[in-house]
Formats: sequence, C-alpha cells, structure tokens
Amino acid sequence: MVSKTKIQLIRSLTHKKFRLEHQLFVIEGTKMVVELLESQWQVAQVFALPEWTESLSAELWHKSKDKIQLVTTKELEALSQLTTANQVVALVAIPQRNWDYTQALSMPCCLALDHLQDPGNLGTIVRIADWFGISHIFCSSDCVDLYNPKTVQATMGSILRTQVYYVDLPTFFEHYPHQKVYGAMMNGNSVFTTTFAPPHCILIGNEAKGIRPQLLPYIAEHITIPKHGKAESLNAAIATGIIAGIATATLKR
Amino acid sequence: MVSKTKIQLIRSLTHKKFRLEHQLFVIEGTKMVVELLESQWQVAQVFALPEWTESLSAELWHKSKDKIQLVTTKELEALSQLTTANQVVALVAIPQRNWDYTQALSMPCCLALDHLQDPGNLGTIVRIADWFGISHIFCSSDCVDLYNPKTVQATMGSILRTQVYYVDLPTFFEHYPHQKVYGAMMNGNSVFTTTFAPPHCILIGNEAKGIRPQLLPYIAEHITIPKHGKAESLNAAIATGIIAGIATATLKR
Repeated sequence: MVSKTKIQLIRSLTHKKFRLEHQLFVIEGTKMVVELLESQWQVAQVFALPEWTESLSAELWHKSKDKIQLVTTKELEALSQLTTANQVVALVAIPQRNWDYTQALSMPCCLALDHLQDPGNLGTIVRIADWFGISHIFCSSDCVDLYNPKTVQATMGSILRTQVYYVDLPTFFEHYPHQKVYGAMMNGNSVFTTTFAPPHCILIGNEAKGIRPQLLPYIAEHITIPKHGKAESLNAAIATGIIAGIATATLKR
Repeated sequence: MVSKTKIQLIRSLTHKKFRLEHQLFVIEGTKMVVELLESQWQVAQVFALPEWTESLSAELWHKSKDKIQLVTTKELEALSQLTTANQVVALVAIPQRNWDYTQALSMPCCLALDHLQDPGNLGTIVRIADWFGISHIFCSSDCVDLYNPKTVQATMGSILRTQVYYVDLPTFFEHYPHQKVYGAMMNGNSVFTTTFAPPHCILIGNEAKGIRPQLLPYIAEHITIPKHGKAESLNAAIATGIIAGIATATLKR
C-alpha cells in the first residue's frame, strides 16, 4: 500500500520548486530503472509491479530489494508522471554536484548550453553527448532543469552517465582560457569544413535567440551548419548532434 | 459562431481515419498559417482571432479573407489540437500526391524512411530535409502519417516546402537503380569519412528495429555514426540530421 502522502510527494516532483525542496526526482521505465540500480546514483525508493522485479537479475534483486516496494497497476498509475505508466517508478536523490574551478579540465571536448529552454532538447542533447563520449555538459544557470521529467525521459538513461553542471558561463570560460570555444551561430564557418582543435568546448545557444551577446568575447570561432533549403532554423538538438558528431570525429580520427 | 459540427469535424482530424475520410488536416499557429496562405496549398477554412488577421499584410488579407472566419478565444480553444491554442487554426486539403515512377529522378539527394513510427521524428526530419535542400522524402507505406498533428507541428512549416510520398520502398528502389543507396546501420563505414556520390538516397530505419532485412539488397553502402560513449542509440531524427548534413555538404562543396 502506497500512502497518499507518498503519492502526493512524487506527483509534486513534476515541479522544479518541489524537486529543489526535497532534493529528489523521478526516473521511470523498465530499462532506465535497471540502469539506475546498476549505477552509483542514490536511489531513495522504487515502486514496481511484481512482473518487473521478476525480470531483475538475482544480483540486482539482492542489492536493491530493500528499496523496492511492490505496487498494483492502479497505484503505479497514481505515481507515474508518464501518460502511460511503465512498470516501475523510482525516487532518486539529486546528486550534489558543484563544479570545482580549481579542478583541471582534462576533457578534450565539452558542451556548453546557453539558456536552453526545451526539456526534450536538453534530454536529447545529454543522449547525444553520451553517444559521442562527451562526459561533461555545462549549462547556464537559466537553462531548463535536468531533472524535469521530460528531460529525464528524453535522455533514455544517458542522464546516469553524463555530468551536467549549472554554472555561470562567463566565469566558466574565464577559468579555462586554454580551451577553444566554438560557438554555433548563423554566420560562421561551415561546420563541415572546420577542424576542431582539442581541448575545445562547443557552445550552443537558446532555441529562439541563439547565444547571448555577453558570451561572444569567449568564442574563438563562429561555426554554422550551412543551409541549402528554406527552413528558418534547425532544432537545437539536431544542430548539437551535427556539431558534436563532427567535432568528436576529428578527435578520434 | 462556429457550429458544433465543424468543431467535431476538426477535433476528429487528430485521428488518421477521419483525415483519410475527409481528406483534410489541420495546421495551427500564427507563423505556420501565414506561410500556408502564402503557399499553393489548398486551404478549406481558417479560424482566427481578430488580432491575428490584423497582423496580415493587406495583400494576404485580400487574397484570403473569404476563407477566414473570426472566432473568440473560447471557440479557438475548442477547435485547437494544441495544449495552448495559438491564435489561428486552418483546415487544409491533403494534397493528392502519387509518385509517378516514369518521372525521371532529378534529385541529387533524397531521403527514404523505413517504418518510422514517431510523429515528432518525422516532422523533425521534414524540417531537416528542408534545411539541407532535400526536396523529396519517400516513406514506406507503414510510416507514421505526415498529417498527424504532432508531425505537422514539428515540421515548423517545412511540410509546405517538402514533398513527402508514401511508397513501396522495394519498388521505389528498383525503379531508380542509378541512385546509390546509403543505409544507416549499426556496423557500417563512418559517415564522417564517407564521400556521398550523387545521385543518392539516404535510407533511415525504424526507431527500434532499424532497416528491414528485405531492403538490405538495395543498399550500396552501409554507413554508421561511430559511437565513442555509452548511449545505446541515437534518436532517428538526430541520426538523419548528421547523415543528411554530411551528404549534402559533399554535394555543395
């Protein structure tokens, strides 16, 4: 039996205010929760249908059983933030993650996002970063929240393998003058002929307004995805996918 | 005053069955409907708030006024398929578009989609094609419907500038043996080092299952977006963006 208070708590976590207050967020879905239990992330509680627990390996069941509460389909639906609940809902502690500026920046490539607003875009970008082996993403403080349910869902589990920091971007760039910042702009050099020199940072701007003027001084090279047709713009995640793909391909060649 | 029957008709068009029956679909939003009225697409009716019509140019107003019905905010909300109605809803005739196989294929690059299922992915891919100047997209007959409201919305107007055909893909490939088919697969050559020879066709498979085995004989070259990290997959639209970007860059260089 899941208490009303617990249901209310979990449902409240669709709002950033309550995620901040409780320092908790929700991960849902059969596959993503398995990856969660296998990871180092701190799980507060797991609400699962009996059939889901039966699919767990003996080792994972043993390691996690104290945190798993079996629920009915009806209870799961009451807990779920999805349109269609998917067997299991996990309550997870938001990791305490502050970027330490004294720490050396050892990454050959990182991503910086300026005022990204769409939760799906951020989640997709985290998934892209994870695909291309970009381990660190630096978001401006006013970017959409990583723990927004739509963002978490769109990462398809990559949230567990990628480090996302909310920082003051000018301060961040000032601390790492040795990295070359490539900014995605409307009138730059073609990304398809750019040679990305490591260490570098790919800076992507807001969906509608692009990169804020105060960040321009930190950009070493303006890059563009040339347009041959008539669409007014490319989706921010698509642009990130193209640029990150080319940039990391240069590193691995 | 909008009749109940009209409201019911428009709301029914969220379902493919009724779009097919009436040969109508819906385009919403201030910007996309302006582009619609400027295009050659056949508009049945436009339901708009007075403030939207005031933003139209004199010429566009003159050309379109017989089709525009002014509505109240409440009526617009009743008509809209969006969570938040956006000033104007247009009822549009589905164009009769059958691919004529005797027609020469003059395109240097086209896209083929095998069993794509996510409406947002299809819409985003149409927008990508429009950005890169790829005018023709060939969908397998079982792809998600182009006129699905989520697809239309995700095209951001590119639906008006791109020709999407539903075809039997094997028949399509057999009729155009001169075009080189590049298939997006898990174990192909890196797309970042591929030289795309025109005329060519980029084939993208289903989100979960990839390209169906019966299409493999038509693929001249297997291409892959190399993975350096741990994500299990890339979103189909992201993969299309990367491949289409590199393929069309080769053509324009």
